[in-house]
Amino acid sequence: MKKMSYKNFPKIPPIENTKIICGKANIKSRSRLDLAIIIFNKQANVAYVTTKSKTFAANIKWLKENKNISKVKVLMVNSGNANAYTGEQGYLNLKSIIKFLSHEFNCKNKEVIISSTGVIGEQLPINKIMTTLNKLTEKLIEKKNMNWESFARSIMTTDTFPKGIYKKSRIGNKEVKLIGIAKGSGMIAPDMATMLGYIFTDADFSSKVLQDLLMEVNEKSFNSITVDSDMSTNDMVCFFSTRKISNTVKTVKDKILDKFKKDLQWLAIELAKKIIYDGEGASKIIEVNVLGAHSYIDAKNVALSIANSPLVKTAIAGEDANWGRIIMAIGKSKAKLDQSIISLKFGKNIILKKGKVKKNYDEKIVSEYLKKNEIKIEVDLNLGKFVSKVWTCDLTKKYIEINADYRS
Amino acid sequence: MKKMSYKNFPKIPPIENTKIICGKANIKSRSRLDLAIIIFNKQANVAYVTTKSKTFAANIKWLKENKNISKVKVLMVNSGNANAYTGEQGYLNLKSIIKFLSHEFNCKNKEVIISSTGVIGEQLPINKIMTTLNKLTEKLIEKKNMNWESFARSIMTTDTFPKGIYKKSRIGNKEVKLIGIAKGSGMIAPDMATMLGYIFTDADFSSKVLQDLLMEVNEKSFNSITVDSDMSTNDMVCFFSTRKISNTVKTVKDKILDKFKKDLQWLAIELAKKIIYDGEGASKIIEVNVLGAHSYIDAKNVALSIANSPLVKTAIAGEDANWGRIIMAIGKSKAKLDQSIISLKFGKNIILKKGKVKKNYDEKIVSEYLKKNEIKIEVDLNLGKFVSKVWTCDLTKKYIEINADYRS
Repeated sequence: MKKMSYKNFPKIPPIENTKIICGKANIKSRSRLDLAIIIFNKQANVAYVTTKSKTFAANIKWLKENKNISKVKVLMVNSGNANAYTGEQGYLNLKSIIKFLSHEFNCKNKEVIISSTGVIGEQLPINKIMTTLNKLTEKLIEKKNMNWESFARSIMTTDTFPKGIYKKSRIGNKEVKLIGIAKGSGMIAPDMATMLGYIFTDADFSSKVLQDLLMEVNEKSFNSITVDSDMSTNDMVCFFSTRKISNTVKTVKDKILDKFKKDLQWLAIELAKKIIYDGEGASKIIEVNVLGAHSYIDAKNVALSIANSPLVKTAIAGEDANWGRIIMAIGKSKAKLDQSIISLKFGKNIILKKGKVKKNYDEKIVSEYLKKNEIKIEVDLNLGKFVSKVWTCDLTKKYIEINADYRS
Repeated sequence: MKKMSYKNFPKIPPIENTKIICGKANIKSRSRLDLAIIIFNKQANVAYVTTKSKTFAANIKWLKENKNISKVKVLMVNSGNANAYTGEQGYLNLKSIIKFLSHEFNCKNKEVIISSTGVIGEQLPINKIMTTLNKLTEKLIEKKNMNWESFARSIMTTDTFPKGIYKKSRIGNKEVKLIGIAKGSGMIAPDMATMLGYIFTDADFSSKVLQDLLMEVNEKSFNSITVDSDMSTNDMVCFFSTRKISNTVKTVKDKILDKFKKDLQWLAIELAKKIIYDGEGASKIIEVNVLGAHSYIDAKNVALSIANSPLVKTAIAGEDANWGRIIMAIGKSKAKLDQSIISLKFGKNIILKKGKVKKNYDEKIVSEYLKKNEIKIEVDLNLGKFVSKVWTCDLTKKYIEINADYRS
């Protein structure tokens, strides 16, 4: 698949009150960036959503135990090791890191947020990490501020390209920045957050406003993508305000936020889609649009049932217009359904109209359409007014290759 | 994978009052058996379970509309076309076939059961089918009775071997026969029936007793296997009594049935496992055994969450002892859970004991174990007394190959 512009890392300017440091701790025993620190000189306000997995990692436990972290001085992310299912030792390691960082940057422990991503069930190589943290922070003053791309690279695991996005937005007459960085490629399935995602703005928002904004945009972006239906133990999406650009916003309902919200939703969706573009082994991105459902939950159920179906995903990989598999996937969902009135389109090509195959339906045209890199499937249940749009990728041999021997 | 004895079709004797006819209708435009009829000379009693899919096929609609079919004279099965999502035309085609068969074999319409399996969304080649039915029934008298293996072959789609099993059983002092025939390879996921399965006995049971027996054994066999989490539109399991061997059984609770029930459960599980052995692209069969759950539903949830996880299935395919993925799959299930007390074994190799990695855990030994063709994963949630055992197979490139171009 030509990853096109999705693959490119855009120019993203620095954001005020923020320093990025990245280094190599050899966590995965390869010499690549795998440790990143972002320091918010003036504490940032923060909001976040985290995985719903019940085998959540040590860093998620930290967030659960320190409820309502609303200010943060340091964000540290390591790749190569998830520090998940590492028990007491894993939690002690996490706390050592937090203690070091809070001491180094002169803040409270609960002003530190850690993200980890990588293999589950192995202890962090804590000595390597501490050594690297020491080095990185020592040279901090002389060191050139590293950029967003370095940060995006530091958090990659099986990702094949760093993922970032930038949008100038506006609140009233003031220009503000919106920056999004994410990682994710496999083990992507929606249940709140589904990857590591970080959004930064220089607009000065309280953590309450940040939380409300994040909840508004998360459902239709990070929570609407799936690569393989497997949910991570470590996922989180964080939204930071570096508090530079003042505004009068007190609540998320303020009309002055309309443009900003639209831009934020756009940014979150585009960032989420980058993850699908980099889905493990993906050769095509698939947009599944479900209309006419009896409820939003039904719409999403049907959309995910299609998007997670191995038989649908392999058919698309094979560019096979086997639309019966879409019908199968709709049928197995829990949604309210009347199979005799379903409409179905591949792109603009009508296949079913209210339960009936289109007259003169020409499979060749649809097969031709399936050669594209971006496939749109539209299902209208013709039952109600609710809709859901989710993104996924096809399922190829490459996915098996990547995952049959991930760790070696 | 050596398919070992599972691949072999055993010697199965004829069963009384029953005639098997198989033919080639070229439904899939390949010259192979694809149409089978079983005639029960003396009406058979019957019970069945069918798919829970809401996009069920025409033949399932027939069963739904004719509630409580309890006697059957003719069973017809075709492969190559599912007659699913074929609307009114598909239902008319089905009724033409039924009318023909009921006339030919002098029974009521509702004494005919049809099964179909194959591609979804295409009309049956009804002319080919009618021509073949005519030929087959004309020559009926001269024709040698075909055997169970022919029947098993006639119903295959992507199956690589015919699936049958035979067990002599006993009710009191009388010997009775139990014969099972099934097909299935992909689109296998549990929700009641998960494939085409037919069980025959010469023991004379009412359809009520058959139904109760089927419900007892179905959950732990056909309803406990998964290849790819995709549920078929056409699945059914039927249980026929040819009514030869009389007995005193009035209810399923009769103690005299104890041995028969045990044998029936064994037969159903072995038949279901044959489907997993033939799972599309499978190189290994995986038994997932969940113990210590808070409820049966929780136990099954966790077992299926593991058995359906692409990341678990690809790790097993790659013989990679990446047990973190099992933890991930447990975490994403809906079950009640305390991650700090989970125990985990691969075969006899302990990995986790009450949440802690076993001292001196040696990954090499587990990697060695994963080279086997039959892998056992045992999870103890250490929360309660409920258990569930399900079977699945690994996920390989071959699955993609088979399904990326199924129809060509």
